Amino acid sequence: MDIIELGDDVISGTRRALARAITLVESQRADHRVQAGQLLDYVGQAGRQALRIGLSGTPGVGKSTFIESFGLMLTGLGLRVAVLAVDPSSRRSGGSILGDKTRMDRLSRDPNAYIRPSPSQTKLGGVAQRSRDAVALCEAAGFDVVLIETVGVGQSETMVAEMSDLFLLLLAPAGGDELQGIKRGIMEIADIILVNKADGDLKPAAMRTCADYTGALRLLRKRKRDPDGFPRAMTVSALEDSGLDQVWADIQALISWRRDQGYWDMQRAEQARSWFVEEVRQGLLAQIETPGLLRDRMLQLGDEVARGQSSAAGAAAKLLELVKTPDESLDAGPGTA
Amino acid sequence: MDIIELGDDVISGTRRALARAITLVESQRADHRVQAGQLLDYVGQAGRQALRIGLSGTPGVGKSTFIESFGLMLTGLGLRVAVLAVDPSSRRSGGSILGDKTRMDRLSRDPNAYIRPSPSQTKLGGVAQRSRDAVALCEAAGFDVVLIETVGVGQSETMVAEMSDLFLLLLAPAGGDELQGIKRGIMEIADIILVNKADGDLKPAAMRTCADYTGALRLLRKRKRDPDGFPRAMTVSALEDSGLDQVWADIQALISWRRDQGYWDMQRAEQARSWFVEEVRQGLLAQIETPGLLRDRMLQLGDEVARGQSSAAGAAAKLLELVKTPDESLDAGPGTA
Repeated sequence: MDIIELGDDVISGTRRALARAITLVESQRADHRVQAGQLLDYVGQAGRQALRIGLSGTPGVGKSTFIESFGLMLTGLGLRVAVLAVDPSSRRSGGSILGDKTRMDRLSRDPNAYIRPSPSQTKLGGVAQRSRDAVALCEAAGFDVVLIETVGVGQSETMVAEMSDLFLLLLAPAGGDELQGIKRGIMEIADIILVNKADGDLKPAAMRTCADYTGALRLLRKRKRDPDGFPRAMTVSALEDSGLDQVWADIQALISWRRDQGYWDMQRAEQARSWFVEEVRQGLLAQIETPGLLRDRMLQLGDEVARGQSSAAGAAAKLLELVKTPDESLDAGPGTA
Repeated sequence: MDIIELGDDVISGTRRALARAITLVESQRADHRVQAGQLLDYVGQAGRQALRIGLSGTPGVGKSTFIESFGLMLTGLGLRVAVLAVDPSSRRSGGSILGDKTRMDRLSRDPNAYIRPSPSQTKLGGVAQRSRDAVALCEAAGFDVVLIETVGVGQSETMVAEMSDLFLLLLAPAGGDELQGIKRGIMEIADIILVNKADGDLKPAAMRTCADYTGALRLLRKRKRDPDGFPRAMTVSALEDSGLDQVWADIQALISWRRDQGYWDMQRAEQARSWFVEEVRQGLLAQIETPGLLRDRMLQLGDEVARGQSSAAGAAAKLLELVKTPDESLDAGPGTA
């Protein structure tokens, strides 16, 4: 595979090249990881940044409808929009439950939109890694906005928030007693809470729910990276396309303030650094998953440990001696490899 | 430090040596890890096995009272008993909230008992590793029973179950509606559920709670490693020392059946193998935590990534090239170190 050519095609906005590039970064094969690194380094030189918007909401809150309406509004403004789904639960189903393009029929046919289903991965760490790489590729491909969608389960919101510039939490109208159902941790990562379905019979309930969350948000500790009035709650109707322009205006106001104050750059730098460390950690752990002498020896030592011939700690120390860091290579000196 | 001498002292049952040995295996220093591996390999040759009993219960159920009463009953039978606390939350407090020997004043003064507080660790993985090593040292020191105690929070029960031969869940008498409060996952790892405080006014409530759990346990899928009648629920009163002899009789019946059926050996072998893999994983990750050339280079590459000069994936690939596995050493051939 010619990485430079693929990279150039991604940068020039060729959809098929972007799809191929994302497939490459999603691969777990060691040689593909090396190529993925080269590709990401190459396209990163283009220095393009998109606005990365994380979005979470439990099933039934109208997430697909919101993304379609919001996405079409953005493309209507002349912006290019990518939608990525991050779904850790796909490791069980073996495929994405979120990535169904037919859910977002109109948006998926929009030439200025690109929808990518969640990769099916076996590990949570792997999902995060591959999703971050896919986001970076969408940025390089010149998208203005990357929407990163996740279902409201466990760690996935935090994972998505860590690859986003801002985080939207989509909720359905509910009785006041359900307010407790939203975990405090999720409230704390949200920049804007959107109470959807503010239409028809549900409108009064949506208004009440919004007021409840406005109150709840006031109780949270003020974050440095928030201008006055943020985090905030507001009502929208994805079905009736109402309130979406206000959401976009609020997002722009928030982001513009963060850029001016330096928080945008700071957050991007911190995120990049922690992605790198996580990438290194996953790479170190991959050493024992890759077929080869190290893995063979590990299986052999594992048998010894299982038979009680060696302690877990002792066998691990023996195995780890086979992995050489630069310090040890230096200690050993030349000619002793 | 003379590892052989320390090992011999542990095996001969010297309490001070055991305490020193546990402190050694709890250390995160790389040289201590190597020594710990040597020590565990050495004392493992003694081939001693204790009965490892995991025990969990939320604060307030009378866990300390139970451990003291149960432990004293066992020492009264001529058995030597070690009590280890596994407390992942100690990373926050910087010390153990469980390890207070004054809680178990009589047991701690018993020459046939040994109580070790939880190590204060920064990582959950670290707590598990060090606790397993401490259990292995107590076995080598000739204890007959090792009680591994944990608070009822999140992952800690699973962690303790994975280093135990059987698992006790201690509960307080409660209204039937509280039955739902016990997570299904915890029910599934329990071999015996003990409803404590079956004394005085609480006795009827304890009986009802026990009946409720007996019913709930029947709904669980039968596990291969269980003889008829297990898992089971029973009432005890740690305060009045009642029911404890029955707990011990049940434990012996369960374990004797598992030994006969081969499940004991099978479970021990599986546990040892997975501890080893976990030990290797932690060891690989420790490479970037240890001061040295690799870590220096990682910090340097992290800065490049934060400044946008390199992609996370690309920089990670560069760093990982510095770590050599046996396959790569062979590829490189002699003289190219």
